[in-house]
Amino acid sequence: MEFIREIVSQIKGVSEDIRGDVQSRLNNLTKPLGSLGKLEDTAKRVACALNDPKAVVRGKAVIVFASDHGITAEGVSLYPKDVTAQMVYNFLSGGAGINVLARHVGADVFIVDIGVDTDFVDSPGLLNRKISKGTNNMLLEPAMSAKEAASAIKAGYDIAADLISEGYNVIGLGEMGIGNTTAASAVTAAITGLPPMDVTGRGTGIDDASLQHKAGIIENVLHLHRPVANDGLDLLQKVGGFELGGIAGAVLACAAGGAVAVIDGFISTAGAAIAYLIAPESGDYMIPSHNSVEVGHNKLLEFMGLLPVLDLGLRLGEGTGAALCMNIIEASSKILNEMATFESAGVSEAEK
Amino acid sequence: MEFIREIVSQIKGVSEDIRGDVQSRLNNLTKPLGSLGKLEDTAKRVACALNDPKAVVRGKAVIVFASDHGITAEGVSLYPKDVTAQMVYNFLSGGAGINVLARHVGADVFIVDIGVDTDFVDSPGLLNRKISKGTNNMLLEPAMSAKEAASAIKAGYDIAADLISEGYNVIGLGEMGIGNTTAASAVTAAITGLPPMDVTGRGTGIDDASLQHKAGIIENVLHLHRPVANDGLDLLQKVGGFELGGIAGAVLACAAGGAVAVIDGFISTAGAAIAYLIAPESGDYMIPSHNSVEVGHNKLLEFMGLLPVLDLGLRLGEGTGAALCMNIIEASSKILNEMATFESAGVSEAEK
Repeated sequence: MEFIREIVSQIKGVSEDIRGDVQSRLNNLTKPLGSLGKLEDTAKRVACALNDPKAVVRGKAVIVFASDHGITAEGVSLYPKDVTAQMVYNFLSGGAGINVLARHVGADVFIVDIGVDTDFVDSPGLLNRKISKGTNNMLLEPAMSAKEAASAIKAGYDIAADLISEGYNVIGLGEMGIGNTTAASAVTAAITGLPPMDVTGRGTGIDDASLQHKAGIIENVLHLHRPVANDGLDLLQKVGGFELGGIAGAVLACAAGGAVAVIDGFISTAGAAIAYLIAPESGDYMIPSHNSVEVGHNKLLEFMGLLPVLDLGLRLGEGTGAALCMNIIEASSKILNEMATFESAGVSEAEK
Repeated sequence: MEFIREIVSQIKGVSEDIRGDVQSRLNNLTKPLGSLGKLEDTAKRVACALNDPKAVVRGKAVIVFASDHGITAEGVSLYPKDVTAQMVYNFLSGGAGINVLARHVGADVFIVDIGVDTDFVDSPGLLNRKISKGTNNMLLEPAMSAKEAASAIKAGYDIAADLISEGYNVIGLGEMGIGNTTAASAVTAAITGLPPMDVTGRGTGIDDASLQHKAGIIENVLHLHRPVANDGLDLLQKVGGFELGGIAGAVLACAAGGAVAVIDGFISTAGAAIAYLIAPESGDYMIPSHNSVEVGHNKLLEFMGLLPVLDLGLRLGEGTGAALCMNIIEASSKILNEMATFESAGVSEAEK
């Protein structure tokens, strides 16, 4: 795990001076104090993460980590496991939700096979970083080995670091993996100490009986492995998933490289929480894009002290909420740079 | 008021067939049922308003109605009344929040002087539809005459109808007017029957004592004029504002012409509520863009049965929330038209 220690040593807290500069600028713009709400908060966060008081967005990417989960053998999802691979093909041909929304906001999409249970053939555009053909069934054994957990983080780190070196500075983190809300709920229950039923949702749309079943499985999984609540690597290995590891690594790369990590929904946030446990300063580089319908999502955001930007009732994943949020991120940056000040526009300030 | 009766006769309820067609299309796209939340709701509303199952956005405009308010003599705002005119100049030179955000989403901005207490000189780009130099002080007399109320509605109707005939089919409705949250709160208290204190907010940022003062003024205004709760014209005349009338007229034009009226925050919604009282079917043509910080806003949305799309803590007005929402409207349209179906992408559907 030497490389993880090395990454962590590169991650610095953000500059309070920049936050103050941006706040001053916002206060001088021709609008009542604070009246652009979350746009102003976002401008400050983005400026700090980029270490740039102008918060200039130079390039937008969405990385979609796809992986399979052994726990699907226990009937936790409404969709067959094959859908993970089928959706990868859909991503590659541009027909999935994330393709449409990323095009809409002008973001480039990068699809990563980090552990899909298929041999993809003739798939230009697919980044092959397969750790294994899906995780183990964590009801029977740890989801992955310690070595695999580290490799997943390394894979995500390297991909995001490469994108940053190519000039992308706003990076959305999405995923695809049938069964992965079960892993995310297990991670969330372990981190927060809440009962599995309080952090387990309907995923792709299971009914009440299946929801009970899913929460019961998670309870058994946690009882079996007893993951350490504040140890990101232990959580990832015992009850995580390869895409969670990839996302954690990519978040660490953003924090180390001074880019914005745009977190998507529940699974993306579970990956981000693993990064947060490894390096708490990484939280300053995250923009939590939206508040998912999945009940565990908000608990994780609260744990990291993050307020979601959008609340659109989304529960698709893939990075779709992150893509939509990029539009708000760019809007916040433009507010900062393009609005007139009271002085420049000759507008009177508040009385008293 | 003959022309208002004529407009109302042109407004039809939207097609349930189109709503059903869009729902079927959404259900076949490669995503769990309903998993794009408000994006799916928005796609349905937009398709119905446009009477187009593809919900194609052809042109986006934001109309900003600016006007002054006699009630400012009572010290209800933190900013001097002159700011209304100063901000009009700021709009015309492109430096205000709405200019930045409309450019960001690709919408054209139209600034209308519908009642500013200034003679604007050398102002190309400003649409002069001045009814009068501000409303009367409604603590002493009705805000305007019945004739002025009708003229304000007619002015807004004509501007929006012209834009629709030029090809715009998504029209945001913004405003500027120091003192206009007082008018909007009075309208809201009258419509909902709630005590003024429950629907009165801080506007540009007044303190607790000023808030009490403002609510007390509204109580006295309502006691003096006793506007009829379900009579849009009576409300507008007695306790409204010229920009509220302009917005109401523009909403009616959207409903009559099959365009989407993107409602902004509290004042914009108060104008829309006047249109709703005049022609309840006009509600089907509205997209409520966001949930303002102003406490009365949500009460008005509830009254019309509308759920806001965004919740960004905004309280600037000008149409800024409407502009941001246009990005979501276009995203919802693209989802409908660009995503693959389960069949076309060869993706398995849900089991059971």
